[in-house]
Amino acid sequence: MATSNLPVLYSFFRSSCSWRVRLALSFKKIAYETRPVNLLLNENKTEEYKAIQPFGAVPAFIDTNGKVFIESVAIMEYLDETRPEFPLLPKDSVDRATVRALVQAIAMDIQPVCSIRILRYTSRGETDWSNHFISLGFEAYEKMLEKTAGKYSFGDTITMADLVLAPQYYNGIRAGVDMTLYPIIYRIHSTLEQLEEFKATHPSMQPDCPLEPY
Amino acid sequence: MATSNLPVLYSFFRSSCSWRVRLALSFKKIAYETRPVNLLLNENKTEEYKAIQPFGAVPAFIDTNGKVFIESVAIMEYLDETRPEFPLLPKDSVDRATVRALVQAIAMDIQPVCSIRILRYTSRGETDWSNHFISLGFEAYEKMLEKTAGKYSFGDTITMADLVLAPQYYNGIRAGVDMTLYPIIYRIHSTLEQLEEFKATHPSMQPDCPLEPY
Repeated sequence: MATSNLPVLYSFFRSSCSWRVRLALSFKKIAYETRPVNLLLNENKTEEYKAIQPFGAVPAFIDTNGKVFIESVAIMEYLDETRPEFPLLPKDSVDRATVRALVQAIAMDIQPVCSIRILRYTSRGETDWSNHFISLGFEAYEKMLEKTAGKYSFGDTITMADLVLAPQYYNGIRAGVDMTLYPIIYRIHSTLEQLEEFKATHPSMQPDCPLEPY
Repeated sequence: MATSNLPVLYSFFRSSCSWRVRLALSFKKIAYETRPVNLLLNENKTEEYKAIQPFGAVPAFIDTNGKVFIESVAIMEYLDETRPEFPLLPKDSVDRATVRALVQAIAMDIQPVCSIRILRYTSRGETDWSNHFISLGFEAYEKMLEKTAGKYSFGDTITMADLVLAPQYYNGIRAGVDMTLYPIIYRIHSTLEQLEEFKATHPSMQPDCPLEPY
C-alpha cells in the first residue's frame, strides 16, 4: 500500500500510541512517511482504514516488505527485532521483563482507560475521568520507578519504557494532572524532552497538527 | 518471599489477566504455588500487596530466583524467554508481531476498559458497560482473526494469543455478550476449552473460587 519505498506510519498527531512508534522510528533512525488519520473527524472509522486496523485505532505501520503491523507495543517489539540499531530492550531476561512491565503498566493500565472512545462514552466529564485515572496510574508508576529508575526509567539507558512514558506524560498534562506530584516521572521527562528525538516527534511538530490551539 | 521452592503466582480466580499466566504456566508444565488475592475484598489494596504490585493489580509472579514480575503479558514473555518448552510465540519476526498484535488487541483495547476498578467508577451499569466494549472489541477481533486464524488464533499452533483469548471470552460470557456473533472466536474457544490446560486453569477450578455461584 506504500506509494514510496519508505515504510508508512498511520498516525494522529496527539495520539500517545502513535507517538510511541514515532519515537522508536526516530531513535532507530528509520525514515518513514506519515499518513495522518484524524480521530476527531472519524477518519479512523472508514472501511478503508478499518481494513488496515479493524479496531480503527492508530497507529498502524506498513513496512517496506508490504506487511501491515498494528498495536503500538507490538510494532515497537517488531522494530526492535528487525532493526537492532538503538535497542529498546535490555539483553537480560529479568531486565527485559522489568522494562516490559513498565511499558505495559502504561500501555494497559493507564492509557486505554482514557482513550477518546472511552471519554466519549462515559457520562462523567472527560477531563475529570482522565485526571482521575492518570493520577492513580502515575501514583503507582512512580512506585515502580523507585525500584528501576536511574537517569531514565530503567537505569541510565533509554528503553521502550521511556518511549511510552513521555507520551503518557503529555496526556497527563492535557488532563490537568499536576506532574510535580510524581518527582521521578517529572525528572525523567525533563531529561527526555530535551532530546532531539522527542522534540522532532512531539505532537506539535506533526504534519497534521492544527495551527490553532487544540 | 516464597515459602516453598516453587514459583509463586498471586492470582484472583476470575481475573482474566491471572488466568493468562496460569495458562502459560500450565502449557509450560511449571509447577507453582497459588496465593489468592481477593479483589472484591480489596486484598489487592493492602500495603503488603502494593509493595509487590504498586497498581494493586493481579497477577504478580515470583520466580524461584526471588525476582518479582508483574503485568501479565510481560510475565508471559519472561516465561517464554526463560522456559523454552511449549513456545508461546512463533520464531519469525513478522509472525511474532502478528501474535503480539492479537495479544495486545485484547490486553490493551478490550480488557482494561472493563476491569473492576473501571466498572466501579462508571456511573453506567456495570454489565452494560462491559457488554458494550467487549462486543465492540470482539467485532474488531473477529476481523483480525479472519486474516490469522487456523485451528487456533494464529494458524494451527497454540500461541500466546489463545492464552489471552480464552479468558476474555469468559469475561464476555459474564457480561452477557452473545458469542455466537463471532464465529471464529466461538470456534477457536470451543477447541481450546476441551484442552486439559484450559480446564485445569479455569476460574471454577481455582482454590479461591467460592462454592456459591459468583
